[in-house]
Amino acid sequence: MSSTAGLVIPCKAAVAWEAGKPLVMEQVEVAPPQAMEVRIKVKYTSLCHTDVYFWECKGQTPLFPRIFGHEAAGIVESIGEGVTDLKPGDHVLPIFTGECKECRHCKSEESNMCDLLRINTDRGVMLNDGKSRFSIKGKPINHFLGTSTFSEYTVIHVGCLAKINPAAPLDKVCVVSCGISTGLGATLNVAKPKKGSIVAVFGLGAVGLAACEGARIAGASRIIGVDLNPNRFEAAKKFGVTDFVNPKDHQKPVQEVIAEMTDGGVDRAVECTGNINAMISAFECVHDGWGVAVLVGVPHQDAIFMSKPINFLNERTLKGTFFGNYKPRTDIPNVVEMYMKKELELEKFLTHRVKFSEINKAFDLMLKGEGLRCIITMED
Amino acid sequence: MSSTAGLVIPCKAAVAWEAGKPLVMEQVEVAPPQAMEVRIKVKYTSLCHTDVYFWECKGQTPLFPRIFGHEAAGIVESIGEGVTDLKPGDHVLPIFTGECKECRHCKSEESNMCDLLRINTDRGVMLNDGKSRFSIKGKPINHFLGTSTFSEYTVIHVGCLAKINPAAPLDKVCVVSCGISTGLGATLNVAKPKKGSIVAVFGLGAVGLAACEGARIAGASRIIGVDLNPNRFEAAKKFGVTDFVNPKDHQKPVQEVIAEMTDGGVDRAVECTGNINAMISAFECVHDGWGVAVLVGVPHQDAIFMSKPINFLNERTLKGTFFGNYKPRTDIPNVVEMYMKKELELEKFLTHRVKFSEINKAFDLMLKGEGLRCIITMED
Repeated sequence: MSSTAGLVIPCKAAVAWEAGKPLVMEQVEVAPPQAMEVRIKVKYTSLCHTDVYFWECKGQTPLFPRIFGHEAAGIVESIGEGVTDLKPGDHVLPIFTGECKECRHCKSEESNMCDLLRINTDRGVMLNDGKSRFSIKGKPINHFLGTSTFSEYTVIHVGCLAKINPAAPLDKVCVVSCGISTGLGATLNVAKPKKGSIVAVFGLGAVGLAACEGARIAGASRIIGVDLNPNRFEAAKKFGVTDFVNPKDHQKPVQEVIAEMTDGGVDRAVECTGNINAMISAFECVHDGWGVAVLVGVPHQDAIFMSKPINFLNERTLKGTFFGNYKPRTDIPNVVEMYMKKELELEKFLTHRVKFSEINKAFDLMLKGEGLRCIITMED
Repeated sequence: MSSTAGLVIPCKAAVAWEAGKPLVMEQVEVAPPQAMEVRIKVKYTSLCHTDVYFWECKGQTPLFPRIFGHEAAGIVESIGEGVTDLKPGDHVLPIFTGECKECRHCKSEESNMCDLLRINTDRGVMLNDGKSRFSIKGKPINHFLGTSTFSEYTVIHVGCLAKINPAAPLDKVCVVSCGISTGLGATLNVAKPKKGSIVAVFGLGAVGLAACEGARIAGASRIIGVDLNPNRFEAAKKFGVTDFVNPKDHQKPVQEVIAEMTDGGVDRAVECTGNINAMISAFECVHDGWGVAVLVGVPHQDAIFMSKPINFLNERTLKGTFFGNYKPRTDIPNVVEMYMKKELELEKFLTHRVKFSEINKAFDLMLKGEGLRCIITMED
């Protein structure tokens, strides 16, 4: 039993008061966990594009002040009523979507889109009472994705916490909590390339490179990286990428370029940009007869996927995925084990490291497109 | 060794001299099979929409005179050089697409789109010498789909013949040669519904009802039939259809109607109309998290499939299929065995029967939309 259990914990948090304005380090009060909730001490968090996207808030409903952050690792401080799977001291990864283990999706072998805890970007409160657990001088601060890891302590629904091997280094496995699993699972769980396959990956950011890492682990014979930014090609080699295609270098559509490079198309394609044209190209560059394309990137809400039906009828498959089809509580501990067994090489993704007090530097790096993942150490 | 081996066989054939004009019974000469070819005596043939579509010839390149027909059953009369898999007397089903067993597609576990023998609707000659085996007084008559079964004898590439159980009644299993396998395989091989699934089938013609038959065999708990023609609903009950939806009866899109009927969508959908709007509805009516839609029907060449990417990202899958993903020589004999074991009920599809001399009646029935399959008996 932690000495703080049941008490409000005052601690530091990086609060976004307004869209697009630098986060401000504040003293916040974190209420104890309620039924089915867990309070954790965040040890490391990293910055993901989704944090920046909702912080910039171009088009979405504004929900400020808010504590962002969802890719992280921490240790359970105390548990609320009804929590039986976790106890203080357990090492956990917060997940931006959940697994209630009761709904049709959780009971399905195929889905990870939990009815109760599925990602909700518009909710700034906890499910149990519709209120926030964060406050500053009595004024509530909004949660983000049910995780809000840009705080030394945070409260999370038990269904959004993966209990992991306590031997795993939290400053590395924190990236398994979102982006890396999203790309890795898109390849390993959804595209499922056979050994020797040719795999194309559209977008060589962290998620795309995690998809490449999945292809490398699956034993792909060729991994074709597609990106508009040639600066990304050199770094991508570490992830097993063997061929590079910059659509800007070609007059013809990139799907035709890839089909020519591969005698008719790739075995698998994974789309990690969210650009609608890249989605169409990713689908149309897979080989007829057996090709599978997997969509990961989230496009503009008005975008429309378009392709001629014959592209499907010639035995191509198009699938979408969410969080790499991993069930947060059931599957994510196994991704950490893949790292522990040295199958999954996380170090390649960790390009920067800052102290919590310097969190705005992590935002600057991402806005400049520098590096892949910046690890934010909560304890200075 | 047949007494006719190596000789030209004069026999009756129903020749299409012009697009859309009644077939004419003619005396044709059928040349002996060349290398890798087989001459068969056709015992029964049935009429499929594809015959009528190319006979009407609205838009395609005209290729007349031509002998149509591709859904049939027959007996090997003689074999050409290099044929080792078949011998005179073997019972066979001609298939409009082939399996060379050598190309990448044939060697792939997933594809049946043979590089050498894939369907070619524009070719009116045999591969070996680029010439026809049919002639009337020296004038060549075009082949159709490499099968041309509206003739008492026909010459077919060995890769387009499935050797079947000689105990199977040819007047029934002839329908396995095209339409029934196309619909059945779309469900069993591609959609793969689990026992207890809810399956929607768009289009209740012979192919759609074969898809329903696949769902029944797979143990679907509900089969929702979708068709614009309410006259088809009563007959569909025999194929296990439990619910009927006529899009004309509803103001809202049929995918919304089906989602409401099924608490969020069906587990599997199979599209057998070729109408682009039905294709989109079939995709959008499957449940998020696990739904799979399979496209079977061939649309107008200018049609474009369109849907919002979020429909994919919410873990839906869209696949196309060709001939139910069956490999002609490897798999079709097993479909005949399904019938022999009484798993597959072919009799339900056989609604009409005519003599070969009355073949134009079969065209009339299909043009009027009456019945499912009309069996044409070659011997009067």
